[in-house]
Amino acid sequence: MLIVMRSDARTEDVEKVIKVIEALGFRGHAMPGESRTAIGVTGNRGAIDPAHFENLSGVAEAIRVTKPYKLISRDLRPEKSIVKVGNATIGGSELAVIAGPCALENRDQVFATAKVVAESGAKFFRGGAFKPRTSPYAFQGLGIEGLQMLAEVRDQFGLNIVTEAMDEHGVDAVAKYADCVQIGARNMQNFSLLKYAGQIEKPVLLKRGLSATLDELLLAAEYIMAEGNYDVILCERGIRTFAQHARNTMDLSIIPAVHRLTHLPIIVDPSHGTGHNYMVTPLARAGVAVGADGLIIEVHPCPEEALCDGAQALTPGQYLDLVQQVTALHELVAEPAAIAAG
Amino acid sequence: MLIVMRSDARTEDVEKVIKVIEALGFRGHAMPGESRTAIGVTGNRGAIDPAHFENLSGVAEAIRVTKPYKLISRDLRPEKSIVKVGNATIGGSELAVIAGPCALENRDQVFATAKVVAESGAKFFRGGAFKPRTSPYAFQGLGIEGLQMLAEVRDQFGLNIVTEAMDEHGVDAVAKYADCVQIGARNMQNFSLLKYAGQIEKPVLLKRGLSATLDELLLAAEYIMAEGNYDVILCERGIRTFAQHARNTMDLSIIPAVHRLTHLPIIVDPSHGTGHNYMVTPLARAGVAVGADGLIIEVHPCPEEALCDGAQALTPGQYLDLVQQVTALHELVAEPAAIAAG
Amino acid sequence: MLIVMRSDARTEDVEKVIKVIEALGFRGHAMPGESRTAIGVTGNRGAIDPAHFENLSGVAEAIRVTKPYKLISRDLRPEKSIVKVGNATIGGSELAVIAGPCALENRDQVFATAKVVAESGAKFFRGGAFKPRTSPYAFQGLGIEGLQMLAEVRDQFGLNIVTEAMDEHGVDAVAKYADCVQIGARNMQNFSLLKYAGQIEKPVLLKRGLSATLDELLLAAEYIMAEGNYDVILCERGIRTFAQHARNTMDLSIIPAVHRLTHLPIIVDPSHGTGHNYMVTPLARAGVAVGADGLIIEVHPCPEEALCDGAQALTPGQYLDLVQQVTALHELVAEPAAIAAG
Amino acid sequence: MLIVMRSDARTEDVEKVIKVIEALGFRGHAMPGESRTAIGVTGNRGAIDPAHFENLSGVAEAIRVTKPYKLISRDLRPEKSIVKVGNATIGGSELAVIAGPCALENRDQVFATAKVVAESGAKFFRGGAFKPRTSPYAFQGLGIEGLQMLAEVRDQFGLNIVTEAMDEHGVDAVAKYADCVQIGARNMQNFSLLKYAGQIEKPVLLKRGLSATLDELLLAAEYIMAEGNYDVILCERGIRTFAQHARNTMDLSIIPAVHRLTHLPIIVDPSHGTGHNYMVTPLARAGVAVGADGLIIEVHPCPEEALCDGAQALTPGQYLDLVQQVTALHELVAEPAAIAAG
Repeated sequence: MLIVMRSDARTEDVEKVIKVIEALGFRGHAMPGESRTAIGVTGNRGAIDPAHFENLSGVAEAIRVTKPYKLISRDLRPEKSIVKVGNATIGGSELAVIAGPCALENRDQVFATAKVVAESGAKFFRGGAFKPRTSPYAFQGLGIEGLQMLAEVRDQFGLNIVTEAMDEHGVDAVAKYADCVQIGARNMQNFSLLKYAGQIEKPVLLKRGLSATLDELLLAAEYIMAEGNYDVILCERGIRTFAQHARNTMDLSIIPAVHRLTHLPIIVDPSHGTGHNYMVTPLARAGVAVGADGLIIEVHPCPEEALCDGAQALTPGQYLDLVQQVTALHELVAEPAAIAAG
Repeated sequence: MLIVMRSDARTEDVEKVIKVIEALGFRGHAMPGESRTAIGVTGNRGAIDPAHFENLSGVAEAIRVTKPYKLISRDLRPEKSIVKVGNATIGGSELAVIAGPCALENRDQVFATAKVVAESGAKFFRGGAFKPRTSPYAFQGLGIEGLQMLAEVRDQFGLNIVTEAMDEHGVDAVAKYADCVQIGARNMQNFSLLKYAGQIEKPVLLKRGLSATLDELLLAAEYIMAEGNYDVILCERGIRTFAQHARNTMDLSIIPAVHRLTHLPIIVDPSHGTGHNYMVTPLARAGVAVGADGLIIEVHPCPEEALCDGAQALTPGQYLDLVQQVTALHELVAEPAAIAAG
Repeated sequence: MLIVMRSDARTEDVEKVIKVIEALGFRGHAMPGESRTAIGVTGNRGAIDPAHFENLSGVAEAIRVTKPYKLISRDLRPEKSIVKVGNATIGGSELAVIAGPCALENRDQVFATAKVVAESGAKFFRGGAFKPRTSPYAFQGLGIEGLQMLAEVRDQFGLNIVTEAMDEHGVDAVAKYADCVQIGARNMQNFSLLKYAGQIEKPVLLKRGLSATLDELLLAAEYIMAEGNYDVILCERGIRTFAQHARNTMDLSIIPAVHRLTHLPIIVDPSHGTGHNYMVTPLARAGVAVGADGLIIEVHPCPEEALCDGAQALTPGQYLDLVQQVTALHELVAEPAAIAAG
Repeated sequence: MLIVMRSDARTEDVEKVIKVIEALGFRGHAMPGESRTAIGVTGNRGAIDPAHFENLSGVAEAIRVTKPYKLISRDLRPEKSIVKVGNATIGGSELAVIAGPCALENRDQVFATAKVVAESGAKFFRGGAFKPRTSPYAFQGLGIEGLQMLAEVRDQFGLNIVTEAMDEHGVDAVAKYADCVQIGARNMQNFSLLKYAGQIEKPVLLKRGLSATLDELLLAAEYIMAEGNYDVILCERGIRTFAQHARNTMDLSIIPAVHRLTHLPIIVDPSHGTGHNYMVTPLARAGVAVGADGLIIEVHPCPEEALCDGAQALTPGQYLDLVQQVTALHELVAEPAAIAAG
């Protein structure tokens, strides 16, 4: 159920509605919008009688929801969410660029890359300390030591840190050292992890699973939000298809679909999405042109020596050129006329 | 086998090499490039001895080919092919826009749409006279009567005509009335049709099959070219995947892959590629941003009354806005710096 | 529209109904069943008023059809169709085994294989004279010469011949020399070819396209039947997926789905369905166990020398063993109790 | 690296080799086979010099491994593994039938179902206490209370219990109450969970992910085994494809592929694999015919009232009929001649 408050409803009215929801044994999620607040109700298995709410002060409407999702919905929050990550934001008018190496390898590599990322004007640094690897015998990451390096990068370069957590212990560690917890594609339906990430106070970057439908992606976000953490950023990173010329098939049509259904921002990952150095820049341009809120890009001072996914990493020069291209594109695409038409 | 001629080779040298190839029972395909001509040899099942050619006048090199394709290859022709379609071209510096209704329905619809397309500055008009329909009971197109309307559209608006042929009789008819024969996704591996289309003197627009790999697409083009028709334009129109939020999944990573391997131009079809009106413009932008040589777009004066695929057709207003957006984008992307980086 | 005749309707009644249908400008397809005849109406775009028929002599019911298919439907014909192919049948209580080489290569290969197939007790021989090959430079088949060999095989071994046609000329040739015209996976939506095959008087083996949905397969059969040829046999031969351990992914769940919706028989092709010799027998067993009406199997006297698809061909010894295994399995599965449960 | 011991090697020889491995900082995994023991070495990132081992007592050979997996490999253990689950086994000559409801709902449902399962002669009971649900608002399972019911089922009916764990706490709880820990498809690449499950002393049933390749499935098993738990059973449960007539597409060709590469047993899940009641029995037959070591089947006393996946649950009568059919089939398929040929 969604409860839409009147535009003149007072804070006390909202609080009162939430108390009534809680008294019924459910949970209320207040989402302030530009002109009014909407309150999502979760925790109920069946329908709730709107009569509980319609005479409360400040309530405009109580709407029964038949869609499988509530909190991610544009019905609950018509305006796009702008998610604060450290001292910057994702989802607003600016294109978010998150860049860095696939895996953190050593201080030299990390700081050399961070220098390039800072120079490019990007506000976010990525780098894996805990690496989900298909083989148990592949490099699994530097762990806590890597997180500590990332914290140094933030201090030294003013970059906001995005890095992956693979389990509950990882979520705690990442939440301590970094600004945004990434949940990887292989964990998109690790529901226990989603619930855990819903209880922290850092934003979550949720990558689409390799064979996740749009609904499954949105419901994974809903898992996090139902626990009270509304700061979710989605990420398209390619899906698994029969096509073998790229490592994955980027499904850019999900960007307008996500923007239509939900208020959450969505970024694209052309590095994992293609797996080939020469495809990253063209697909980054395509991602910006289709309307994504940002990019996540792998860059490595020396891709041929990377311990992980070197084939898709950009050199510093390629990366700086990419940023220049997508910045120009984003200015063009973000003009009101273009947005209106999209 | 590929025979690369010296940059100072004379026309007679090229002709002599082709005579030798034919004397061996094979077929020679001369492909003049900017600085030199290369000659592809087809018709051989096994390897040919390079000794047959290396002492002929004007020959720089005879190269054994181990890849499955020859004529489409950048090895044969390093420069991009610019295909002439009527009085315009596809593959050059200009973005080709092909627009019109999915199916030709009646004179009013055809001429109303053509007027909008001409106004937009596009140089190509599309419209199906022969329609491949999943059900035998669905509208199958106006046939020859439709082709005659298309010829009138060319005369009246100066638009070059692109339309589909589904069989040999259709190829003959389309070649007679139109400027470019389209082979649809469902016929991409109709090898008899490909061979037949290889024998006409009109360019062929070859759409990627719903589950075609990159190699299969390129080899389908090779079928046409092996018969002597080198004017082939490829088209990405979405592939079939598990994802259901769009009618197909557009695989834009094939654009840089095609440009890397082959000299042929490739355009994208965001109308069939997405199947949803609201996705067409964002994906058209993405297609241009990724580096496609053109777009094929469905526009209908009244989409809700369309006999075929109305859900994906743009209104005239939406279409004109799309052209404006992609024109600006193409200017930006086509700058040398951008191309170099891609 | 379906018109269901009463069980005591006379032949004249059926003929009269068809005349009325034709007088309305449509086409009537009489399908005699065990206890009653049903008549499908095609050619109409919109709904037809049942009042035209309900007072005619012998008519039990006139039913409006909202499904996309009519003639393939169990509504039209509740009993399974048993299709006559030469002097044998497919779809009845016996398991149909169609075996032979992928491509006909020469007399020795063809007759050596036919001898093994005849010895195994199979009643059908397959072998490609016209080969759809991904590359224009691969072996394209022996053509008419191959068809003539097949006709000799029929005379000498009493085997019924199944072979592929790729275009209209091929359909004519195959219909002349063989007992059953195969339409390959890549032509499943070559609608012109389907219509042409609907006009011959030989049964058609229609293979599922690599990315065809169940509906698309059934509507492709409907294309053939709407032209008047009701002798269609479907074939599951694997679909294209991300999985790479087999050449295709056999989708055996389509067998019970086809049996539920349609009266047409369906066989499976574990040779193309897997692409690996060692998988053919296990998947053939699975196909029989799931309820398929037959198998189509590639066997070659010397698989490692095959000009086409040698990796999946069985040796004569492996093939004879397969037939033994599936015969035993079919006896078990075909018991009434098992069928009832399936 | 694999170290193959001589057939006359003594226990002390094996222990000595493992000590040397550990002294090098790696981990040794002894796998006793019928005639000899092989020892896998894990924990090394690069190549190890075979010279460390080739002169040790009892060592026949030290083999460098270039494949991505070691412990699952037939190279390490040529005989099939027979995994003990409670008082029964999976992987031996008997077909393992694991049956029960999708989700545990209440005592009545659980015990009514267990009675039917025991009557059928099956030795394993399944039922979800922790349910991975796409929506956070769907029924999430009875939790510990459900596990306690399962333990009662074991006591009362002598059935061995298989149930899913979704996180580390769940693994501990399931390992305490049940006989086999199931890791679901959505967690197949939850590497933290795999490692944790590798440290318990109960067998693990590992379901293939919705878009997992063969290699990824085998490496997920390798993750568990690399921690020391060698009792892994694989499960094919359908993959995600474009086909929509079944909930998933069962990929039965993976069964012979798994048997060829690895010594681990593999079972099939036709309930999740198809999602439709009427397909479960035919696909169960197909799974047994293709050579699977067992089946996992959903049965519910009243499918139309099931809280989860009722559409695919069999009624008790359908289930008993299925067991009868597959038992007869398994006897036929398991005859030595059939196995040899497969």
